[in-house]
Amino acid sequence: MATITINGNKQEATCKQELAAMRDSIELLGGKWKLMIMRYLDNRPVATNTFKKIQRENDGISAKMLVKELRDLEINLLISRSVMDTSPVTVAYAITDYGRNVLPVAETLAQWGLDHREKIKEYQ
Amino acid sequence: MATITINGNKQEATCKQELAAMRDSIELLGGKWKLMIMRYLDNRPVATNTFKKIQRENDGISAKMLVKELRDLEINLLISRSVMDTSPVTVAYAITDYGRNVLPVAETLAQWGLDHREKIKEYQ
Repeated sequence: MATITINGNKQEATCKQELAAMRDSIELLGGKWKLMIMRYLDNRPVATNTFKKIQRENDGISAKMLVKELRDLEINLLISRSVMDTSPVTVAYAITDYGRNVLPVAETLAQWGLDHREKIKEYQ
Repeated sequence: MATITINGNKQEATCKQELAAMRDSIELLGGKWKLMIMRYLDNRPVATNTFKKIQRENDGISAKMLVKELRDLEINLLISRSVMDTSPVTVAYAITDYGRNVLPVAETLAQWGLDHREKIKEYQ
């Protein structure tokens, strides 16, 4: 069972809490772009990760969508945004250590989905 | 990176394949009832898991929804359905070994969601 900390005490999460938590995870990790952006940032030096470059190298994402996704990731502490003192000002994005810890969870999910697809194919 | 087997060869999954796989996982594990049903079955002896009993002990699920969920789980090889030669006929459900292997994946997801909720609360 999953555990939850309340007032410093670890206890079993209720079924309802687990479902709410699972929905949180899914909302964050299940979207089309968020994980792709995090992986992209994970593999590249911070200073070069400008908005324009991220957009150019992630084909198909609109500027409006990229703004939204970066903002969601930042609010959730998964990436950080730094404004650099250049002229004109440069804004660059980096994955946080916390964000880096999420990648294996997403990986597990993706791997299970791939394995499951193969399993189901065998039986059809 | 997640891997995929094509004609017996393991290779890296493309980003598109991973996303499709992740959507598969989410569709299966993210719903309101499926995981709850699988956990329920995991903890109980097979012969007693009749439709009526599952419905009674999982408050709030409608018969129509339970039919659908059990059928989805069966198609995906996560649970099995056996018809017992009683009079009247009894139908019982059991989690499969394959289904049992999915539980830790769902657990990981739920735990991350719970931890993340606490992390975000700290920063607000």
